[in-house]
Amino acid sequence: MTDFNKSIETLQGLDVSKMYGEDFFLTWEKSDDELKGVWAVADALRALRERNISTKVFDSGLGISLFRDNSTRTRFSFASACNLLGLEVQDLDEGKSQIAHGETVRETANMISFMADVIGIRDDMYIGKGNTYMHEVSDAVKEGHEDGVLEQRPTLVNLQCDIDHPTQIMADTAHIIREFGGLENLKGKKIAMTWAYSPSYGKPLSVPQGAIGLFTRLGMEVVLAHPEGYEVMPEVEEIAKKQAEASGGSFRRTNDMKDAFKDADIVYPKSWAPFGAMEKRTKLYGDNDQEGIEALEKVLLEENGKYKDWACTEEMMSLTKDGKALYLHCLPADITGVSCDEGEVDATVFDRYRIPLYKEASYKPYVIAAMIFLSKFKNPVETLKELERKGTERVQP
Amino acid sequence: MTDFNKSIETLQGLDVSKMYGEDFFLTWEKSDDELKGVWAVADALRALRERNISTKVFDSGLGISLFRDNSTRTRFSFASACNLLGLEVQDLDEGKSQIAHGETVRETANMISFMADVIGIRDDMYIGKGNTYMHEVSDAVKEGHEDGVLEQRPTLVNLQCDIDHPTQIMADTAHIIREFGGLENLKGKKIAMTWAYSPSYGKPLSVPQGAIGLFTRLGMEVVLAHPEGYEVMPEVEEIAKKQAEASGGSFRRTNDMKDAFKDADIVYPKSWAPFGAMEKRTKLYGDNDQEGIEALEKVLLEENGKYKDWACTEEMMSLTKDGKALYLHCLPADITGVSCDEGEVDATVFDRYRIPLYKEASYKPYVIAAMIFLSKFKNPVETLKELERKGTERVQP
Amino acid sequence: MTDFNKSIETLQGLDVSKMYGEDFFLTWEKSDDELKGVWAVADALRALRERNISTKVFDSGLGISLFRDNSTRTRFSFASACNLLGLEVQDLDEGKSQIAHGETVRETANMISFMADVIGIRDDMYIGKGNTYMHEVSDAVKEGHEDGVLEQRPTLVNLQCDIDHPTQIMADTAHIIREFGGLENLKGKKIAMTWAYSPSYGKPLSVPQGAIGLFTRLGMEVVLAHPEGYEVMPEVEEIAKKQAEASGGSFRRTNDMKDAFKDADIVYPKSWAPFGAMEKRTKLYGDNDQEGIEALEKVLLEENGKYKDWACTEEMMSLTKDGKALYLHCLPADITGVSCDEGEVDATVFDRYRIPLYKEASYKPYVIAAMIFLSKFKNPVETLKELERKGTERVQP
Repeated sequence: MTDFNKSIETLQGLDVSKMYGEDFFLTWEKSDDELKGVWAVADALRALRERNISTKVFDSGLGISLFRDNSTRTRFSFASACNLLGLEVQDLDEGKSQIAHGETVRETANMISFMADVIGIRDDMYIGKGNTYMHEVSDAVKEGHEDGVLEQRPTLVNLQCDIDHPTQIMADTAHIIREFGGLENLKGKKIAMTWAYSPSYGKPLSVPQGAIGLFTRLGMEVVLAHPEGYEVMPEVEEIAKKQAEASGGSFRRTNDMKDAFKDADIVYPKSWAPFGAMEKRTKLYGDNDQEGIEALEKVLLEENGKYKDWACTEEMMSLTKDGKALYLHCLPADITGVSCDEGEVDATVFDRYRIPLYKEASYKPYVIAAMIFLSKFKNPVETLKELERKGTERVQP
Repeated sequence: MTDFNKSIETLQGLDVSKMYGEDFFLTWEKSDDELKGVWAVADALRALRERNISTKVFDSGLGISLFRDNSTRTRFSFASACNLLGLEVQDLDEGKSQIAHGETVRETANMISFMADVIGIRDDMYIGKGNTYMHEVSDAVKEGHEDGVLEQRPTLVNLQCDIDHPTQIMADTAHIIREFGGLENLKGKKIAMTWAYSPSYGKPLSVPQGAIGLFTRLGMEVVLAHPEGYEVMPEVEEIAKKQAEASGGSFRRTNDMKDAFKDADIVYPKSWAPFGAMEKRTKLYGDNDQEGIEALEKVLLEENGKYKDWACTEEMMSLTKDGKALYLHCLPADITGVSCDEGEVDATVFDRYRIPLYKEASYKPYVIAAMIFLSKFKNPVETLKELERKGTERVQP
Repeated sequence: MTDFNKSIETLQGLDVSKMYGEDFFLTWEKSDDELKGVWAVADALRALRERNISTKVFDSGLGISLFRDNSTRTRFSFASACNLLGLEVQDLDEGKSQIAHGETVRETANMISFMADVIGIRDDMYIGKGNTYMHEVSDAVKEGHEDGVLEQRPTLVNLQCDIDHPTQIMADTAHIIREFGGLENLKGKKIAMTWAYSPSYGKPLSVPQGAIGLFTRLGMEVVLAHPEGYEVMPEVEEIAKKQAEASGGSFRRTNDMKDAFKDADIVYPKSWAPFGAMEKRTKLYGDNDQEGIEALEKVLLEENGKYKDWACTEEMMSLTKDGKALYLHCLPADITGVSCDEGEVDATVFDRYRIPLYKEASYKPYVIAAMIFLSKFKNPVETLKELERKGTERVQP
C-alpha cells in the first residue's frame, strides 16, 4: 500500500506553485521541487485509488490525445490518467507522416480545445520537430485563451518528443525510488544507460536523452554507453554534465558496454538510432527524397548489424554490482530468441525482471495524472486532502 | 462573461415545446422561437460553464456519432457537446463511400441505439442522399422506440447534410448576434454569401445553402454571389426568397462579387461545387462509373480555374461598409500564400479576423449541446435553473 | 416494464458466489444458478434503467475492448454495457490478422490493464485460437494482479470466440424466456438450430455451438441440422448430448432441414463454415500459405453453392408448430432479395419477425453488463438494492 499521508507531507514541503497553469515539456526545465512534486502527487493518487477512493477532480472535460506515431502503452497510460481524474479522452488522428505548421497548427489547436483541459502529444519521429511542434500547439492555445477564444487554457503534457520522454523517465525514476527505498538512496548509485542491438531500425533517442537528463540530477554515477556513431543530441549531453556537477554525481560517456555495466546498480540497455542519421533522415523526409531515405536506411541497417554483441546477456549482467543490477526497460524489449533472433536482452535476464519491469510501467499513468493535476490545481495539497475527506468510492462496495 | 439570467429570461418568452423529443434537420423547419431557443440555451450552458458549474444532465448514456466524411472540427464539436451534457461518444465508422439503404439502415440504426440518447450524423457528399439518409435513421429509431425495442428515442442532430449545415450556420449567427449586439441589430444589415476560388474541388453546398436559408429570416439584406454555373439547390433559393419577404429583408443573386461586397456589413466568401455537377457526380457514383467521375472532375477543375479572381482580397474588403465588414468562414479557409498558392482569402485579411473567426467556431459545441438539450428536456428553463441551483463544480477548486 | 423486485427475489435464491472475481468464457463452464443469475441481474439493470435510475456502480475505471474482427453490434453492446455501469471504453486495435502469443500477450495484457476493471475480447476467426488467446490474457492479468503489478484484477468477458458466443446466446435465451413466459416454459419445446445458405463464406461456428451448448441445458428438444460436411466441433456436440440427458431434454443431429423445422417452436437458421475446413484454414494461415487459402476458399464456395435450398422460406416456416415458430437470428441476416440474391431467409419471414429480432438483440448490452456486474460485486443483491434506494436519476428530469 502506498502511504497517502507521507505523500502529502512531502508535497507540503515543496514549491510547486509555478506548475499551476503550465505545460510539462522537458524534465530539465523543471525544478527539483517540481519533479518531487510529480512523484508525491503520483503516490497520493495511487494511495487513494488503492483505498477505492475516487480521484475524479473533473466532473466533465476533455483530454485530447494527439499521437503522431503508433502507440499502445502511452496511449493507454494517457487514457488511464485522464479517466482517473474524470476527463474523457478524445483522439485527434492527424496521420503519421504529416508535418503541419504555422497557420494549420494554430487553428487546429484552437478548434479541438473548446472543452479541452489537457492535451497530450507524442511526436518523436523527426529531430528538431517534435518539441517544436508541441510548443507551437501550446503557444496557440495560450494565445487562444488570452484572446477569449478558449474559456480555459488546456495545458500540455509531452508524451514523448524528439528530445525527452518525461513521462517514461519520471515513471522509471518513481520505480527506482521505490526499489531503492527512497530518492536519497539513489545518490552515488551507478546507472548504465547503454545502447543495445535490435534488428529494428530508427528507435527514438528520447529515452536515453531523457535518462541522462534526469538521472544526473539525482547524484547518481551516470554512464552513457554506445558504439561510436550512436551519439545522442550534444545539447542534452551538455545538460547532463552540468547537472551531474551540481548534484554531486557524475556523467561520462563510453564506447564500451562492459565498462558501463561494471559494478552498476542499475542498467538500462536499449536500442536507439544515431542522432546524426536522424538529422539526415529528417532532412530527407523534408525534401521528400524517397531514394535518399532508402539509401540511408540501408547504410544504417548495415552499420547497426555490426554491434550485435551489444546485448544485455547473462554474462554482461554478471559484471554488475553483485551480479544483481536492477534491469530497466521502457518496453517492449527486443528479447533474443523470443521477439527476435538476436536482440537487446537475453530471455533469462528479461524473465527474471519481468515483474519489476511491469511495475516500472505501472507508474506511468500516475505520473501523467500527477503532471495534469499539478498544472490544473493551485492548491494540490488541499485538493488531495479534500478527495480523501469526501472519500467517494471508486467502485461501489 | 455570458449572462445566464438574460438567457433564461429570453428562453421563458419562447415556445420551444415542439422541440421536445424531436430531431434537428434543417433550420427552416424550425420556428423563429425555436431558433432563438437554441441560442438562448447555448448561452445559458456557456454561462454556467464559465462559472465552473457542471452542465451534466445525463448521468450516463451514449451520443452516437456517424461521420460519412472525414471531419475534425465537427467531430470535436459533437464530442464536446456530448461531454458537456454527460453523454459518452461512441463513433460508428461506416466507411466513407458506402451508401447503405433500407433494411441495413433500419437495422443498424436500432442496433447501435440501445443506450443512445442522441445520434449526430454528417453526410454531405452526395446530393439527394445525406438528408434522406438522416430521415431513414430517424424513422428507424422512432419506430424502434414505438415498437418497444428502444427504451428511449434517440434524437438526431444534423451535423451537415447535402442541404443544410445547421450547427455551423447557427454558430455563425450566434457569433454575429454577439458582434452586432443583438439579434434585432441584424435587421437591414447587408450580408454577402459569396463563392470564392479554391484549388480543391467539390466542397459541399450546405454552407451557402444553410446561410441563405437562415440569414433571410433575420431581416437581413442577403446577397448570394457566384460565377455562372455555381448555382445552389433551387429549392433552397425559393425558401430564401419567401423568407426574405416575410422577414422584411431581401434576397438576391448576382454573378458579380464586387456587387455583393459593396457596402456589405458581413461577408462570407467560400468555395463550393456547382449543384448541377454534384448531381451528375452522385449519379456517376451510383453507377460506379469511374471513368465518368474522372472526366467530370477534369471538366470541373478546368472550369474552377477560370474564377481565380473570386477571392476575398484587401481590395475587395475595401468595398465593404467602411472597409470593415465582418469576415466569416466555417474554417478551414484556403488562404492565399499560406495553405495554397491562390485561394479564398488574402493572408492579411484572414489574419486580421483570426480571433473573431476562432470565436465564431467556439459557438458550435454550445449550439449542438443546446439542440440536444431542447430535444431531451421538456422544461428547459427549469432544468437549467436546477443546474445553477445545484452548482456542482465542473472542476474541483 | 421489467420487474425489479422479481429479479431481486430470483437472484436471492441463486448461488452466484463463484462468479465474483471470475471471467466468463463458456456457458457450459457455469452452473445453472450462475446463468440464471446473469438473466436476473440483466433484468434488474434494465428495470432500473426503465425507471430512469442510474446503474453506475463505477465512478471511474476502464473497460478494454479488444476486437480481432470487425464488429459493430458487439462493439456497441460492450460500449453500452460499460457506459451503463460507469466504465469508459478504451479500444485496443491490434489489427485483424495478427496472432500474437506468449510474451507479447502477457506484456500487452498487463500494459493496458493498469486502470482496467474489465476486458472484453472478440476473437473468433481461427479454430483453436480464440478461446486459447482469451485464457492467455486472463492468466496474464491474474498473475499481474497477484504479483502486485495491477491494483485490481480485470475480469474478462468472452464477446465471441472460436467455441462459444456466450453473450449472444445468453441474450437469445433471455429473449425466448420472455417470449415463452418463463424459463420453465421452455421445457419440452423444440428448437431447430439449422444451417442456412449464405453467399458469404466462412462465418464463425460459435453461434451454432453456443446454441446447442446452452439450449440443451433447458430441457428443450434441440435439433442441429446442416448439410453433410458442415459439422460443428465434436467436443461441443458431446457436451450438448450429456447436457440434454441431464436436463430431461434431447439433442440430435440431422442432415434434413425439414426434419428440424417440423413442429419446431423456435427456429434459428443461419450460415456457418464447416469445422473441418476452418481447421484447415487455420493451419494454412499459420503456414502463411496464400495459394492454399485461395484453393480452399474456392472449394468451399463451390460446396456452399450446392445448398441454396437450405433457406428459411415461407414454405419451411409452414412446417413449424402452427406455422408460427419463433424465428431467431443473431443479425445481420442474409435476406433473399434484400441483402443478397439468395440467402438465409425469405424477406417476408424476416419482416414478420423484425420487431422480435430487434428485441432479441436488445438483451445483449444488459447480458454483458450483468456478466461484468457479477464478476465485480460480491453481494450483487445488496448492490442492486442500494442503486434502487439511492435512485440517482440517469437523465435529469
